[in-house]
Amino acid sequence: MERFKITHKSGKARVGILSTKTGNYETPFFMPVATKGAVKYLEVEEIEELGAYAFISNAFLLYLKPGLDVIKKHKGLHNFMNWKKCIFTDSGGFQVQSLNDFKDKFSDKGLKFKSPFDGSLHELTPKKVMEIEETIGSDVAMCLDQMPLYGSSKEQVEEATKRTHLFAEQCIKNHKDKTQLLFGIAQGGTFPELRKRSSQFISSLNFDGIALGGLAVGEPLEAMKEMIKISIANMPEEKPKYLMGVGSPKEIIEAVEQGVDIFDSVWPTRNARHGKIFTSEGYLEIEKSKHKNSLESLDKTCNCKVCKTYTKSYLHHLFKANEPLGKKLLSYHNLFFLQNLMQKIRQAIKANKFKELKDEYSKF
Amino acid sequence: MERFKITHKSGKARVGILSTKTGNYETPFFMPVATKGAVKYLEVEEIEELGAYAFISNAFLLYLKPGLDVIKKHKGLHNFMNWKKCIFTDSGGFQVQSLNDFKDKFSDKGLKFKSPFDGSLHELTPKKVMEIEETIGSDVAMCLDQMPLYGSSKEQVEEATKRTHLFAEQCIKNHKDKTQLLFGIAQGGTFPELRKRSSQFISSLNFDGIALGGLAVGEPLEAMKEMIKISIANMPEEKPKYLMGVGSPKEIIEAVEQGVDIFDSVWPTRNARHGKIFTSEGYLEIEKSKHKNSLESLDKTCNCKVCKTYTKSYLHHLFKANEPLGKKLLSYHNLFFLQNLMQKIRQAIKANKFKELKDEYSKF
Repeated sequence: MERFKITHKSGKARVGILSTKTGNYETPFFMPVATKGAVKYLEVEEIEELGAYAFISNAFLLYLKPGLDVIKKHKGLHNFMNWKKCIFTDSGGFQVQSLNDFKDKFSDKGLKFKSPFDGSLHELTPKKVMEIEETIGSDVAMCLDQMPLYGSSKEQVEEATKRTHLFAEQCIKNHKDKTQLLFGIAQGGTFPELRKRSSQFISSLNFDGIALGGLAVGEPLEAMKEMIKISIANMPEEKPKYLMGVGSPKEIIEAVEQGVDIFDSVWPTRNARHGKIFTSEGYLEIEKSKHKNSLESLDKTCNCKVCKTYTKSYLHHLFKANEPLGKKLLSYHNLFFLQNLMQKIRQAIKANKFKELKDEYSKF
Repeated sequence: MERFKITHKSGKARVGILSTKTGNYETPFFMPVATKGAVKYLEVEEIEELGAYAFISNAFLLYLKPGLDVIKKHKGLHNFMNWKKCIFTDSGGFQVQSLNDFKDKFSDKGLKFKSPFDGSLHELTPKKVMEIEETIGSDVAMCLDQMPLYGSSKEQVEEATKRTHLFAEQCIKNHKDKTQLLFGIAQGGTFPELRKRSSQFISSLNFDGIALGGLAVGEPLEAMKEMIKISIANMPEEKPKYLMGVGSPKEIIEAVEQGVDIFDSVWPTRNARHGKIFTSEGYLEIEKSKHKNSLESLDKTCNCKVCKTYTKSYLHHLFKANEPLGKKLLSYHNLFFLQNLMQKIRQAIKANKFKELKDEYSKF
């Protein structure tokens, strides 16, 4: 079975089909994040309604809570969440590093840590991570990797990258379920030479797709663009490419232009919970007093249920009154906006008009 | 125009039609609470979908935030919230008393207080309250009243009741918008003599309906039942009767049996946010570990979208993981359950089988 097929190109931007056990999904696509088995505030029914067909969960957090026994009992995460379309799972190595409570210890074997929930000790080896992701039953499993934090020295990044390569080999070796796709992750920080080397190494292994990891972690946009360029130039064209952690319209467009196919980020939902939203005119902050009396919708050009139903004034009030409904409605709008952008991107590539679309979104 | 018409009776329980400016609404009905212009976690579309056709908001809190200018700009609360059916507004006197931050001062003129939002000084007179509720444009406005806290002395309750009567006369005098219904509120604490006197006095004024106030505030169920009995016996049969603050299945059934037509309470949604739900088998607490692995729905006999979609295990996980979606889904279920109960109550009265229905719900 062909697992990825490019169907259209416009410059280096492309439309393709990613085929997984649950269906065929047109790229480029953006995934909302359901870290612990739920997109914050939103039902799966709404996720589908707003146009998403894939999301990403965190294997490591699900392994801790509810635990694999519960997911096994449901015969996988799809049933547990009642979602029939595509699920990616990240290994969770990043989560272990980014949570302060976790006393992490990376070695070439894997990752030791203390559960923040009950203090129990755990070890995540590449083998163990593959078992967890297979039990969860996601469409696409991500390798265990070690992501160097932004600002790390070249030596630290080099060490993390070497370890990521070791883990990648171990993951491939231990991944049994061939109905599940396995993606490798290239690291390298913002060091061009390391980025190149990692992209080449991960590409040399037999992964179903390749992720660009360790970007959008605080580095300037120009540095990110350069790293994407180097990565893509050192990866085979025919493989799907997934830029992890990117979810702003500007960054998505820049990355698609270079040939990236898949995205995920908490950015749209996290910003929504803080009242910051995407509109066709650029960003809008709902708590600003100028919206207090506005009878307009958030975005006149948007067809989402929030824009069709509520005034800015009402949404402003919900935030000022600290009503949870406000966070929910803005999360919905931001994800809808982004899914609508992805659809426009796919259409523009098919019509070979990607440059024109990019100009339209220059306000971000 | 006839504003209330009794269509069926089963014992003292009755079905009727309350006619307001937005439509005709069959009683007995239960109203979710949208204190600040939103039912917590739920969209108006969902409120309608789960079977409610009326909710109650707090005039006083809306007057402070977003302020009457904002509501006026929308031409009323219906447009502000995008809700086309029935809205009740409570004056907010109770809110002033129950929030600690409010330095309240009741006098025969009204109620002075400091806004908890900006420290500004306000005075709520009966006249002012009528103006606020008319501007909000609810279907049914409630009078300003003084609710004695449970445990107050007879003298305190007597004083509050007398003042409530004064306010009632002032409200009637100052209520101009005849498309809006006006309900009086009888008080009297749990003192039979005061309860009787207040019910008689409020009934003697020309209100469109009469509320039983100051109940379900901590008194034993038996005391509440006795007070309802005394109240109803001293009110004209043809007026709609509204028991404020009651929302448990058991209490609703007891009150309907005595002739109550309308209810509201935060009980179903507040309990849901704490993981406590109604089922046909009685109460269920979703956080209990026995639900961790359960593939069952919350309630096998329930047709709500939550019961049709998710397992107890998943809902348990959402609560354990502190996902806001859990609170939303359980709020939806509890309100659906209660609306379904109200529908069964109406059907049972129409079929003159209210007693049989009461037996069915003996588990609560």
